Amino acid sequence: MKKIYMDHVATNPLHPEVLEAMLPYLKEHFGNPLSIYEPGIKAREAIEDARASVASLINARPNEIIFTSSGAEANNFALRGIALARQNQGKHIIISRIEHHSILNSARFLEKSGFAATYLPVDKYGLIDPETVKKAITKETVLISIIHASPEVGAIEPIAEIAEVARQNGIIFHTDAVASTGNIPLDVKALGVDLLTLAAHQFYGPKGAGALYLREGTRIVPLIYGGIQEGGRRAGTENVPAIVGMGKAAELAGRDMDKRVNHVKPLRDKLINSVLKTENVYLTGHPEQRLPGHASFTVEYIEGEAMLLLLAGKGVYAASGSACSSKTLKASPVLLSLGIPANLAQGSVVFSPGEDTTEEDVDYLIEVFPQIIIRLREISPYARGWDEAEDSKCTAN
Amino acid sequence: MKKIYMDHVATNPLHPEVLEAMLPYLKEHFGNPLSIYEPGIKAREAIEDARASVASLINARPNEIIFTSSGAEANNFALRGIALARQNQGKHIIISRIEHHSILNSARFLEKSGFAATYLPVDKYGLIDPETVKKAITKETVLISIIHASPEVGAIEPIAEIAEVARQNGIIFHTDAVASTGNIPLDVKALGVDLLTLAAHQFYGPKGAGALYLREGTRIVPLIYGGIQEGGRRAGTENVPAIVGMGKAAELAGRDMDKRVNHVKPLRDKLINSVLKTENVYLTGHPEQRLPGHASFTVEYIEGEAMLLLLAGKGVYAASGSACSSKTLKASPVLLSLGIPANLAQGSVVFSPGEDTTEEDVDYLIEVFPQIIIRLREISPYARGWDEAEDSKCTAN
Repeated sequence: MKKIYMDHVATNPLHPEVLEAMLPYLKEHFGNPLSIYEPGIKAREAIEDARASVASLINARPNEIIFTSSGAEANNFALRGIALARQNQGKHIIISRIEHHSILNSARFLEKSGFAATYLPVDKYGLIDPETVKKAITKETVLISIIHASPEVGAIEPIAEIAEVARQNGIIFHTDAVASTGNIPLDVKALGVDLLTLAAHQFYGPKGAGALYLREGTRIVPLIYGGIQEGGRRAGTENVPAIVGMGKAAELAGRDMDKRVNHVKPLRDKLINSVLKTENVYLTGHPEQRLPGHASFTVEYIEGEAMLLLLAGKGVYAASGSACSSKTLKASPVLLSLGIPANLAQGSVVFSPGEDTTEEDVDYLIEVFPQIIIRLREISPYARGWDEAEDSKCTAN
Repeated sequence: MKKIYMDHVATNPLHPEVLEAMLPYLKEHFGNPLSIYEPGIKAREAIEDARASVASLINARPNEIIFTSSGAEANNFALRGIALARQNQGKHIIISRIEHHSILNSARFLEKSGFAATYLPVDKYGLIDPETVKKAITKETVLISIIHASPEVGAIEPIAEIAEVARQNGIIFHTDAVASTGNIPLDVKALGVDLLTLAAHQFYGPKGAGALYLREGTRIVPLIYGGIQEGGRRAGTENVPAIVGMGKAAELAGRDMDKRVNHVKPLRDKLINSVLKTENVYLTGHPEQRLPGHASFTVEYIEGEAMLLLLAGKGVYAASGSACSSKTLKASPVLLSLGIPANLAQGSVVFSPGEDTTEEDVDYLIEVFPQIIIRLREISPYARGWDEAEDSKCTAN
């Protein structure tokens, strides 16, 4: 059976050139970057080369890049590190209701530590109005963190406008750009952000490598204390092969950006146009202001996980919009924030084509998906009015 | 020129079988472990297999292993996670003066957050007396953390006895076993510890993979918040290849433990006996109660970094005992804690043979090292009484 990977929003395969770049550091160049002899120097230089590549992808300076083990770590580091560094100026932070759990739960941790947090609403497309940000600011606000693009609904937020609101009020601004970095052009200077989170496995780099962009001169409290790695801002023996891979992946993303966007965008559009022809299927997120490789829907009367399983049975690997999907039948808080009713939110699905996806793959998906919807609706308790039996709240852990 | 890697205490090469085990997860098996389709399930199962292998190495249960990105992360997680989880019972912790910087600096962070910390002294061998632990306990003490074996002086602490003191007083006990796990037999049940830190790259596993053993039923506050990975205790997309590699490395360490110990111990002993024949060279740490692959010295009238550079010039890669060695000329706080004078502490060197080290390698080292000492003493300002010019304090960042 054909296997079609339509879940690049969950993770990407490693690009063969990236693995090629990593292999010497998994073999002969295994030195500890802190060591002062040749194998250590070799590893240290490789890290600095990778840092320059990652910086270049987002128009930052190399010394503004701090490597972490994941986007989640970078998000925790950003929120808590800035909040702690600035707590003498105020104890209020602003985030949105559609943030990743690593932001949401870091905010909750800060609330337990004596901070106040505002969770901004979004419109029906998942977009945040810069005006609501402005209104949420108090004298106590020290940090605003808004996701750059939602992995669940694909919406790209007006980050430059929101960052400008923050700047005008002297507030540090962070954006979680895990879903967008490497997939769309991104320039920290043009966006005007102070911090930005990225993750290598979202742009054909390795798992185990993330980074935090920290604008030069911005003070932060470490999340992981220890040695002098990353300028004393993030301790632990560096994951040299993964960092090297992230550097290579950044280089390729910069080089192939236009090609990649021009490849996935028509596939996405074909997918959206075809899938929406099925009755009672709705696009989630914004029709235009969305990630080029992201097509997300809600399908009425159907439960997301059932769709995923039947799709997998046909060799198509996709995601449900719900971050809780793999463990519960509860609806995604992100979709609920868009005003989507709980029972409809449970029928969410995300298709995210990538650089290896072909038009034939999309044609196959377009062929099998409506059949799956029909089949599931025939057996769905939702279609028979059973939706009230489900709890509509999803707790994020 | 011959290249002799005598710095296994800094990091290990990846075992070829470990790389072999990792490769499929760097290639075809790239799925996100949270995904519910086959590539995700494959990744999830691989993680659980690795968890079982790591658990088995230290006689733990699989559900007691939490994967992290490094030993440093696991140490931060342990100290801060337990302190926060138990702060209602008291706000005092006990560590030793010879802990790794990830423990020392986490303790300092806790001190800034309203905790009190006691830094226990060690004897001239670097050993901690369980009686001093007992005396340091107050009604407020909620956590004791003592390193299992020092990477700087090789001394193996009486952890079972100290853990027993903690247990009798109802205090959680953590040990940083990064330098020992996989290198000597280690059993969390026999030691009686509640938490234990390990790092894969210390036993021929990959960088980017560490773990925290957390005894079943012990409550901890996460360090990295986010999704449901690691039972909600450590968020972030799992570094599947590195975790798989750690599992394989743990399996090999268990299988080859005796062989490895029996290989490095005679090399270590030959090294120690020969090096000590040179005048004004002293062993650091305990003569017997030390890591089997660890030979550490102080060399009078000589600065550690100069030795390392000349050794590297002869193709021998070694470490200075000082964690600050690569950045400053200051003496190691660990060595100072042993009562070693600052000028002598600066002349520290550690040789750590591994499974690929041959007797010929050791013979070569024994031949070149005394020549290097003689040469350096001829040009050393220390030998001419210049030691007062150096600041003897090393700040840990």
